[in-house]
This record gives sequence, structure tokens and C-alpha cells, in this order.
Amino acid sequence: MQTFTKVSSPHTVAQVRQTEPLVHCITAAVSMQLVADGLLAAGARPVMTETASEAPSMTHIADTLLINLGTLSTDALAAIPDSVAVAADRGIPWVLDPTAVGVAPVRTKLAKQLIADGPTVIRGNPSEILALDGSASGRGADATHTSAQAHDTASRLAVTTGSTISVSGDTDLIVSSRQQASFAGGTRLLPRITGTGCLLGALTAACLAVEPSPVTAAHVAASWLGTAGEMAAVRSSRPGTFKIHLLDALDELGEMCGERE
Amino acid sequence: MQTFTKVSSPHTVAQVRQTEPLVHCITAAVSMQLVADGLLAAGARPVMTETASEAPSMTHIADTLLINLGTLSTDALAAIPDSVAVAADRGIPWVLDPTAVGVAPVRTKLAKQLIADGPTVIRGNPSEILALDGSASGRGADATHTSAQAHDTASRLAVTTGSTISVSGDTDLIVSSRQQASFAGGTRLLPRITGTGCLLGALTAACLAVEPSPVTAAHVAASWLGTAGEMAAVRSSRPGTFKIHLLDALDELGEMCGERE
Amino acid sequence: MQTFTKVSSPHTVAQVRQTEPLVHCITAAVSMQLVADGLLAAGARPVMTETASEAPSMTHIADTLLINLGTLSTDALAAIPDSVAVAADRGIPWVLDPTAVGVAPVRTKLAKQLIADGPTVIRGNPSEILALDGSASGRGADATHTSAQAHDTASRLAVTTGSTISVSGDTDLIVSSRQQASFAGGTRLLPRITGTGCLLGALTAACLAVEPSPVTAAHVAASWLGTAGEMAAVRSSRPGTFKIHLLDALDELGEMCGERE
Repeated sequence: MQTFTKVSSPHTVAQVRQTEPLVHCITAAVSMQLVADGLLAAGARPVMTETASEAPSMTHIADTLLINLGTLSTDALAAIPDSVAVAADRGIPWVLDPTAVGVAPVRTKLAKQLIADGPTVIRGNPSEILALDGSASGRGADATHTSAQAHDTASRLAVTTGSTISVSGDTDLIVSSRQQASFAGGTRLLPRITGTGCLLGALTAACLAVEPSPVTAAHVAASWLGTAGEMAAVRSSRPGTFKIHLLDALDELGEMCGERE
Repeated sequence: MQTFTKVSSPHTVAQVRQTEPLVHCITAAVSMQLVADGLLAAGARPVMTETASEAPSMTHIADTLLINLGTLSTDALAAIPDSVAVAADRGIPWVLDPTAVGVAPVRTKLAKQLIADGPTVIRGNPSEILALDGSASGRGADATHTSAQAHDTASRLAVTTGSTISVSGDTDLIVSSRQQASFAGGTRLLPRITGTGCLLGALTAACLAVEPSPVTAAHVAASWLGTAGEMAAVRSSRPGTFKIHLLDALDELGEMCGERE
Repeated sequence: MQTFTKVSSPHTVAQVRQTEPLVHCITAAVSMQLVADGLLAAGARPVMTETASEAPSMTHIADTLLINLGTLSTDALAAIPDSVAVAADRGIPWVLDPTAVGVAPVRTKLAKQLIADGPTVIRGNPSEILALDGSASGRGADATHTSAQAHDTASRLAVTTGSTISVSGDTDLIVSSRQQASFAGGTRLLPRITGTGCLLGALTAACLAVEPSPVTAAHVAASWLGTAGEMAAVRSSRPGTFKIHLLDALDELGEMCGERE
């Protein structure tokens, strides 16, 4: 099957499916269900607790952590620093998804603090990556820049922070201080359903549980979601049915990668 | 295509799709995803932040605002007054959806205060509109009255508040102090999935971004959702698949209206 | 139709559909939409308010109550004791779903307090039931034990608490101090979408509104969801489409049971 060749590392996908990593997600309310269903379709196990009194305990038993600033409830705001501290303390890989950074003051300040805590991967759309550098501000969670426009900023951020930067857009760019990768694919339907960016952050966290190279993990996640999107777009050109086929395709690709092992 | 003729103003639908208005939604947790996916399918862009520290900043950059009392979290309760103040101050059109008003004390008091702030449109089911007037109380978010029973109350509310009142039910009635419109259509399947009323409020907000007449905007939203519901009901008679086809039909109708321009 | 015979009491299903009980759910954010859509598909009416200032008022007008510890927001944490007090005071049947008990300290303590308040039914996976007894702790919301391993603990809990214990797994076991029932069916796809356990708790609450025997109510809910899962698995082997067909099948089974009356 032709599309299959687009997953950058089938072995990593197979490993996620086989080991079923527990991914603790503190993420946007609006797409929590898609993120959880997407992780399950990929073979990982989601846990979504976000109260300050319990989130750190969940991070403690998780394989990886996703911090998505999304709708950023008061609960999440209180829980994020302690959960990140647990991840740092125990060496648990974690992804920062600075949704809509630059648009509202609280998340912008928080995102900058979190970057100082050393996320393994920072994933955002081009406008969000530019905003982290103070170079742009977006409108809501939408990108108004291309990946190419964010390339220099991503490279600079990778050097100053030590994190791997994953920029998703027309082309997905993954940049560390020493490596680069890209995925040119996907479909224009992905941004027409809510939460596919959040899901990419979550899949990146799932891949970090089995793959020591953050560039490889972020690349696999981008190519897994993008290829699944292409498969779903063949089956439907409308957003409602597309979303359902996207979940199916994440599962189908996982199965194909597993069979190949 | 016959169903197409039921959208009351194809031009407004085309405008939403072309201008992609940013709609800030403070809305029920239970249907947040459907509301966001429905807005995206319609061609608008949702942003759902509801913390007091950030919501007013989001309203500030939004084209229109939806206040839905839905599950009414502590976060939303704190954020609503300040976001409404931003909308009032900047002349941003806004929709009040007083879900389940009359059933619980906090939302009933809040709804009455918000009405005094002058929402552009108040959208509710017949029981909710009657409850705003103290004439009835519902059970949960369900209507136990017909649109016709709420007609007089809606007309009176339109005069006393200056808002346009959108009553959704077997027939959708839209009433201002000077105008009236109605949409008799839709399908019995719409109330069998959660959040279609919330989505109607959100689509009304999207239409207000491009259409200066609140009656026209509310009428377009009711006929867009209702016609999409009819199209989806042709494709499925069961609620799970119906919901998916509903999102597809919102997109399809938007495309058809755009092509006609 | 062969699958139809698996619903343990078609009459109870028909009664739910006919009386449309109002089920107040304080439940996990991640699966709130599936729970609400599932209840609507089954013919019941969901209401999901979880703030301390309003939840008790909702319980007051509801037919039954579901308390699911799921993502356990600060709002839910504050609202649960007062809503349970209303249920106890008015004799409203209620279900406790101690999601992920044993994993995090707050929910473990809360679950034990709530058990003392006398839930009509306690529903959990085998690991959660064992954790209530201090015999095990799970990882997130996933079960790492079989129903058979939890059988003795469930029987002991039924005696000490007076509650009916519903253990869901490969086989669903329902145990009271005097009765037992089981449902061996379902499909491996049910745990591959988020919130099917939560939905089972909600369906149990819906059945308690029309069926005085908690064992029968829990048995009907387990067989209704399990049979719907089997029907959906015939139509799809992938999680995205499976979920949609599951909602359709809940509705379809309800209709079939109703026609038989």
C-alpha cells in the first residue's frame, strides 16, 4: 500500500502499539475526547486528570506527559507546574503545546516559564512558534504563517532551549540543535476538525515513550497523523465523516506497522 | 437541489465561509466539541477559552461572542461578565443561550442580569424563553412547550429588551420588536444528539459577524442547521451516524452557497 | 434477530425509552459527550451540571444520579457530596463509578467516603473493584485484572456495603448480597474508545429509574451496551466508525425492545 511508506519509522509505530504507553494529558477541554480516542486508536493509553491535587500523581505513573495550554482551565493552570516538576524529576519525556500563545497574557507568560523547564518537544503551528520568540501573534488557535516562515525561529529556539521544535503546517518541520526532518503531506481537511493539532502533540508524547530521539519521535507522530489524514481524505471529503475515518486510519496504520515487524 | 432552497439567505452563508469569523464561545463542556466542529464545518473559527484571566482578551480579538449557560463551570461563571463587558464596550455582537434557565437558581439570576446587558440575540427552546419571563420552568435542557406557546412571551421580551429572540422547536421563530421570521423544518433527530441547540446559538453568532440584521442572522442560522439536519436525516435515521452527516451537511450547504455567489 | 435475545430484560429497555428518565451525571470531562449522546440514544435525558452551586438542584429534579470520579475537576469535587446528600435524602437511586480509584490519593479517599453513603450500584472494572478493597491498584483507568479475579472482592463488598457491585470486563458480573447475574459478550473494541465504561455507569443509572431491582438494572445496562457493541463490531472493526455504530445500535436495540411490548 503506497501511503504506508509515508510513516517515517514503522518500527516506532509498532512499538507504541505493542507497549501501550500511558500518556498523561493536561489538554484543551474542547478536544479532550478526540485526543483520548486518537491515542487509543494509536494503541496508547490516555489519562487526562488536571486537578492540582491529583495530576502530579498521574504524571508519576505515566510514561510521558503532554502539556497543552488549550482552553487552560483554572484547574490546569494550577496543576501544570507540579506535573512538569514530576516529569523533570523522574526524567519523564514531555511535550509542550503552547496553543494560542501570544493571544492572551496568562498563557504567553506561562509558556515562556515552561520552556525554561526544558520540554523534550515543543509543538506548535508556525504562528505559535513565532509568538514564542515574540515575532508574531496569532488569532485564536489558527496559524497565519507558513512553516517556512517559522524555520529560522524554530532553529534558534532549538539552540537556546535544547528542546526539539515541531512546527506543523503545510509542511511539518522538526528541528533540534543538531538534526532536522520534515513531512510534506497531510490534507487540508485536518485543520477543519477541532483538535488535530492537540492530537499531534499527544501522538508525539506517545512516540517519546518508545523512541529516545525526540526528532525521530516527533517525525513519526507527524507522518503517522498526516498519512492517516491522507487515507481518511480518500474516504471522505467532508469534516464529519473525515474525523471518523481519521481515527480508523490511525488504527489501521498501527496494525500495518505491527504486522511488518 | 431542493433542500438548498431552504437556507433563508445563501449569501450570508457564503459570507461566513469566505470571511471565516472568529467566534469566542463560552459554552457547555458536554457539547464543546460539537460546537467547535460545527463552527469549523460552517467555515467559522471557534475559540473556547473560559477562564476569567483570559476570556476577555479572547473576546477582544473575536468577531462575535456566544454565552451559553450550559454546564456553567466556576470558570465560566467568573469569566462571563467581563467578556460581555468587552463585547458591549467594543460593539461586538453577542448571543445569549440561557440553557436550562429556570431549573437552577444561579443560572436563572445570571440570565436575567445578562439580558439587562443587551445581548444581540437570545436563543432558547420554548421552555427556556418562557422561563425568562417567569412563565415556566423546564426539566434540564429539554423543552416541554411548543414554539407557538412561547410566541407571545418572545414578542414581549423583544420589546422590553431590544434583543432579537430566537425560539427553536418544532418551528423556529425569530422575533424582534419590528420583524418576524420563521423556519419550519429540521428533523426529530436533532434533539436526539447532545448540543444541537448550543450549535444553533454558535451558528447564530457566526452569522452575526457578517450580517447586520439580527433577525436575518438568526433566521439563516436556524435554516442552515435545520436544512443540514434534513439532509443528514436522509442519509441516516440513527443518532450516531446522523451526527456525522450533520457536520458534513453544514459544510456541503456552505460550499453550495459559496458556489452560487 | 439473534443479537436481540442478549438483552437481559427487553421490558426494562422499553421502559427507559418510554419514560425518558432524567439522569444527572457528574462525570469525566473526557467522555461527557459520549455519555450524553449514549443516554440520548438509549432514550434517556442527560443533564451534566457539576458546580457546587447548581448540582444539588439538578439532582433534586432528576430521576437518578451518576457519580463518576473520572477527571474529577475541582468543581465536581465540591459538588459530589451535596448531590449525593440530595439523592440519599429523596431516595433517588445513584451509581458510583470509582474511575481510577487506587491510582491517586484524593479519589481513593473520596470513593471510600461515598461507599459509606450507600450507592445503589458501584460499577467499575476488575482493578477498580479490587482497589476499593485495598487489594490492587491500577494504572490510569485501565483494568489489569479479570472479572473472575474480582469476584470474591465484589461479593464481600456487596455484603459489607449493601450496594450492588457491577464488575465490567471480559465477562460482566453483577453481585448483590443475595443475587448474581453475568453477561458474557461485548467486543474487544469497547475499551478501544474512550468512555464506554462511563457510559455503562450512565446506562445503569438510566435503568435504575425504571427497574426497582439494582441487579436487574445493572444486568440490563451491561447486556444493552454489550449487545450494541457486538452489533457495531459487525459493522466496523475500527474504533472511529465503531463508536458511531455503537450509538446507532443503542438506539436500534431500544426501538426493537419497544416494538416488542
